[in-house]
Amino acid sequence: MSSYICYMDYLLPEQKMDVEGIFHNLSEDKKSSITDMDAHIKRFKEDTRLDRIAYFKDGQEFSEKVYEMVDKMLQAANIDVKKVTYIMCGNEHLFRANHVSTIHSLQADFGFSNSMILPIMHPCAATLCGLKIADKLLEEDKYILIISGCYWENVEDRYIGFTMRGDGVGLTLVSSHGELKVCDNKSLNYNNAVYDIHGAMRHDPSLSRMNLIQKGSEFLVESMKQYKCNEKTIRKIIQPNAGYSVFHDLYSYYAKVNPELFYYDNIADGGHMCDIDIIRNLKDYMEQQEINKGEYLMIYTPDVEPTFDINYYSSLLQKV
Amino acid sequence: MSSYICYMDYLLPEQKMDVEGIFHNLSEDKKSSITDMDAHIKRFKEDTRLDRIAYFKDGQEFSEKVYEMVDKMLQAANIDVKKVTYIMCGNEHLFRANHVSTIHSLQADFGFSNSMILPIMHPCAATLCGLKIADKLLEEDKYILIISGCYWENVEDRYIGFTMRGDGVGLTLVSSHGELKVCDNKSLNYNNAVYDIHGAMRHDPSLSRMNLIQKGSEFLVESMKQYKCNEKTIRKIIQPNAGYSVFHDLYSYYAKVNPELFYYDNIADGGHMCDIDIIRNLKDYMEQQEINKGEYLMIYTPDVEPTFDINYYSSLLQKV
Repeated sequence: MSSYICYMDYLLPEQKMDVEGIFHNLSEDKKSSITDMDAHIKRFKEDTRLDRIAYFKDGQEFSEKVYEMVDKMLQAANIDVKKVTYIMCGNEHLFRANHVSTIHSLQADFGFSNSMILPIMHPCAATLCGLKIADKLLEEDKYILIISGCYWENVEDRYIGFTMRGDGVGLTLVSSHGELKVCDNKSLNYNNAVYDIHGAMRHDPSLSRMNLIQKGSEFLVESMKQYKCNEKTIRKIIQPNAGYSVFHDLYSYYAKVNPELFYYDNIADGGHMCDIDIIRNLKDYMEQQEINKGEYLMIYTPDVEPTFDINYYSSLLQKV
Repeated sequence: MSSYICYMDYLLPEQKMDVEGIFHNLSEDKKSSITDMDAHIKRFKEDTRLDRIAYFKDGQEFSEKVYEMVDKMLQAANIDVKKVTYIMCGNEHLFRANHVSTIHSLQADFGFSNSMILPIMHPCAATLCGLKIADKLLEEDKYILIISGCYWENVEDRYIGFTMRGDGVGLTLVSSHGELKVCDNKSLNYNNAVYDIHGAMRHDPSLSRMNLIQKGSEFLVESMKQYKCNEKTIRKIIQPNAGYSVFHDLYSYYAKVNPELFYYDNIADGGHMCDIDIIRNLKDYMEQQEINKGEYLMIYTPDVEPTFDINYYSSLLQKV
């Protein structure tokens, strides 16, 4: 069955912290690995164009904001909670932060009594992974709810080299009708770990990041080919807020697309919030720009495993 | 499309460790919480009837055994690897142990080039969760491979109060044909956490375990009702090796079924190995007993979240 995004929403916490503040609050151990802190921060900010991240003050605020978002969705979308057949989610915070599983709690408290929780542990791509299997799992007149939520308790976990992680909540409601049709999807799991299973080195560790970008660019090209689209027929590529130059300079170079095809407006404020980035950017872009019926948008995200193996996803969306 | 288990296999590591050895190797901190160690071990062994767990000597052995199992499956089932459309898995060890994602590695090394990795993070129920959605995801003449694998690096993680965790590997291959039909499935996510999202206590912590068993027994009864089966028409209920008396005395009492309906033969040797238990017990039972065409078996497992929320699953299987 064809699936449509019939509702999407996101929330950024009110509290903000400057990039400088995060660097200065790193552990002495992490700080000592940075030779010239001021120069490092300057370069990081130039590369990423990230100014500040958004954060929840504690796990309780995180859970309560997820509840607020679900409540708001139920009122806005005006759906029967009993018609939601799956609650998909990909962030372990939703199962553990604040000593509760916010997902199990909300399933019970909002009465999603005909739903099955499906935890898809690709934190940065669960929404896109969910969209990829939604057309097979969706039934007539039913809904699939995809929830994304990030809450990093420890400031140490926010700085991940090429970007900084922020907190947030995102919701996507999929159904057999709506304004945004999920026309097609593509995924690729890429074995990019430094070691093989016998412990032998497969490539120099410094290559992992470059592989991520090169293979990602290749994946973008292959996606467009599969979707029979090109940069003229796609209005925008919505990618994660994981840095400016990586998309503006590298992806555009390798994929041979206009750098302006990517969306940069939300990079400065918030930080990388797993796949909430995609929902945020997609929603904001569609509100900022008049998208005509029939026009196409592409969403793209890589999910990077701790081993540096990568799960790439893209979807072609059409305004209907 | 109706789905069938067309191949299943499991592997227990050769190395074994006595229950006593694990207790004596616990940290001083954990040991000090046990007042009378000898009495505690005696009671634990009487309750669980667990003698020893099986363990891999390191992460490399774990990954290599997963490879051996996949290799064995490909030879035995004689399938085209390109026809496997999903590789499902639920244990984080498969993504992180040994600094590699064994799943991403094997997908590349065995040439599963048309498959999508779907990580279902219900470690103790990923196989049953996979079976529940398999009929929707499976395509004609295609396969879904479900891989389970446990490797607990730290002896501390093995003792979890009511049982001990062992290591192992399990494989289930689902297709549109085979000897074991997946007739029906049921799942229930149960909000059993001690706290609500606002931090208020929902029930006394000591009740969580009893809730798990009582709700599980209720779920068993509801499953049989949905399957239009009863203890006379089900040959066996295959449950995890997570203790003897919990099933023999408690589940049978609450669900009002004959204690001999459950399967106990593998409890003593191996330890609880997530959902590998189900594959192991099902395979062994079917090899030990003559199951006639048309006869039914039921598989059941609860997956317990760190918060004590529970994901219950059952499936009705029929020998065809």
